[in-house]
Amino acid sequence: MRIGVLFGGVSWEHEISIVSAITLKKVLGAKIENFIFVDRNHYFYEIPSHLMQASFFASENYKKCKKLSIDNAGFFLSSLFGKKYLHSDCIINLIHGADGEDGVIASLLDFYHIPFIGPRVESSVLSFNKYYTKLFAQSRGVKMLPFEVLREKDTRKSNLDFPLIIKPSRLGSSIGVSVANDAKEFDYALDCAFEYDKEVIIEPFIKGVKEYNLAGYKAKDFVFSIIEEPQKQDLLDFENKYLDFSRDAKTKNANITNTILEKMQDSFKRIYENCFEGALIRCDFFVIDEEVYLNEINPIPGSMANYLFEDFQKAIQELYENLPKKKNIPIDYQYIKKIQRAK
Amino acid sequence: MRIGVLFGGVSWEHEISIVSAITLKKVLGAKIENFIFVDRNHYFYEIPSHLMQASFFASENYKKCKKLSIDNAGFFLSSLFGKKYLHSDCIINLIHGADGEDGVIASLLDFYHIPFIGPRVESSVLSFNKYYTKLFAQSRGVKMLPFEVLREKDTRKSNLDFPLIIKPSRLGSSIGVSVANDAKEFDYALDCAFEYDKEVIIEPFIKGVKEYNLAGYKAKDFVFSIIEEPQKQDLLDFENKYLDFSRDAKTKNANITNTILEKMQDSFKRIYENCFEGALIRCDFFVIDEEVYLNEINPIPGSMANYLFEDFQKAIQELYENLPKKKNIPIDYQYIKKIQRAK
Repeated sequence: MRIGVLFGGVSWEHEISIVSAITLKKVLGAKIENFIFVDRNHYFYEIPSHLMQASFFASENYKKCKKLSIDNAGFFLSSLFGKKYLHSDCIINLIHGADGEDGVIASLLDFYHIPFIGPRVESSVLSFNKYYTKLFAQSRGVKMLPFEVLREKDTRKSNLDFPLIIKPSRLGSSIGVSVANDAKEFDYALDCAFEYDKEVIIEPFIKGVKEYNLAGYKAKDFVFSIIEEPQKQDLLDFENKYLDFSRDAKTKNANITNTILEKMQDSFKRIYENCFEGALIRCDFFVIDEEVYLNEINPIPGSMANYLFEDFQKAIQELYENLPKKKNIPIDYQYIKKIQRAK
Repeated sequence: MRIGVLFGGVSWEHEISIVSAITLKKVLGAKIENFIFVDRNHYFYEIPSHLMQASFFASENYKKCKKLSIDNAGFFLSSLFGKKYLHSDCIINLIHGADGEDGVIASLLDFYHIPFIGPRVESSVLSFNKYYTKLFAQSRGVKMLPFEVLREKDTRKSNLDFPLIIKPSRLGSSIGVSVANDAKEFDYALDCAFEYDKEVIIEPFIKGVKEYNLAGYKAKDFVFSIIEEPQKQDLLDFENKYLDFSRDAKTKNANITNTILEKMQDSFKRIYENCFEGALIRCDFFVIDEEVYLNEINPIPGSMANYLFEDFQKAIQELYENLPKKKNIPIDYQYIKKIQRAK
């Protein structure tokens, strides 16, 4: 299988996506046939593998690379002699945040009939917007912390008790997230979050809460990663989390009981089934009094959470072999013809 | 304002979209600069205005028209002398059903920075999938009928009382919808619905229930259409509804009390605000014992529900002038540079 890695995108996580793609190069090596970069103007570039270094992007030298166009069945190089198809069997959508995780890239790839690993448009919308994640998870019987939604014009108050954690509805990677211990901090936290989104989510902040990450996917059956207890400060800041996207060393399994493990895997299945097919996702959970709560769904985790899988190459291969198929829609103009005749 | 009308698409409602576009031509006339057709292979064609007739598509003569490509800022004609931009200030997304209403076209237009009237990707997903519409509406305090969801592999039973109405989760225009009066009919109805989607919605069927349609949009403020009581058989079949898409004659206001009117407008606002900005939508309501229930959200109603508006041209103009803006995301490679230095 020849893989194309799609990264960059217009999002607050643009740079993280670059780091993520460089890491995937280390992990998947020669299996990656093309690196396809989406710049801040939504132009596509083919980045030669040996130039996949952070400094190359920081200096904006990518602009010297060849531009690509997207069309039916794939990406193309334009030349004087016509269009040249960029061979790959499957794209990995590695655009974190907006574009990649909000359904835009999924739609683009779907529209052009390009096979890809990543969330589809529905599951993107449901996981990208934390408010809709709440509604969705609740409807599937998955526990979450209580929450409130505020929009820019709403009165700035909360019925939840301090300390609170305030997050933009549609961002990951801790950007714009802060903790408030009192009304003054709450007001400032809202200012920060509204920088990034018109809608924010407010939740109780539980200092020192146990947090666990579980990644997985469905091939013939569910395949789960090991469970990691992320090493963290009170709140991962963006730079720490940023470095997190460059991880390629295997991590160790968290020390939890079988009951908790089963509860997490059960919640994961409830979330994933009939929605996230085609994607490798990571669910982040809290454990409070032996109960499992979903914190968030990461439908394109940093460097695809490769470090959580025993055999990551196999994971990618299995995902590729089990991509969701759409029902065929015949278009035969029967109705128009019938109505023409009836006139 | 010069309008481009985008229609067709790969969906069960492909032909309806053609009828809808032909109707819009009658209503908007010279304001429409281009007709852009998406065929069953996702190729774009420019259809000259005088060829906008059902028979032209039924005979598949559209294939002789010029192919278009989509790129930054618009649609383009390719020629030996380079690319020629197809002028329009704003696209009306008139693709009903899949592609148009599921978020795919919205994503495509957003990705290429093309201004358009129609639902954005989030609101598309929430209105296209009837199951998510239920969760969304409930969360906004809008009443809906009780419901159940069934997937292909689930046991075929319902806890609701007969008669039931069975609908594919992701289709409009009555396609695949049927009423079941007993277990045998229920089984057959499920077969029908599963032809079109892997997921179906089951609701109580209330014979003779009062049904009303209200369209509207938000410009500076909310603008509502008149309220129509659709003339119907027990269940509109596809052909009747099909003809419905070609309506351009004004209709008359339904005879309802002010209380019901206000309840409908209130529900409409709850649905629309902070979600459907940029779109002209039609909400279909049931009224049972003086209470208003949302039946479904039509984010791209047939021929844009032009016949419900006093001044439809003004509606389009106002929508264009109030399209939602995205927050600007600066990409300056600060983080990568910082991390490079820290190494």
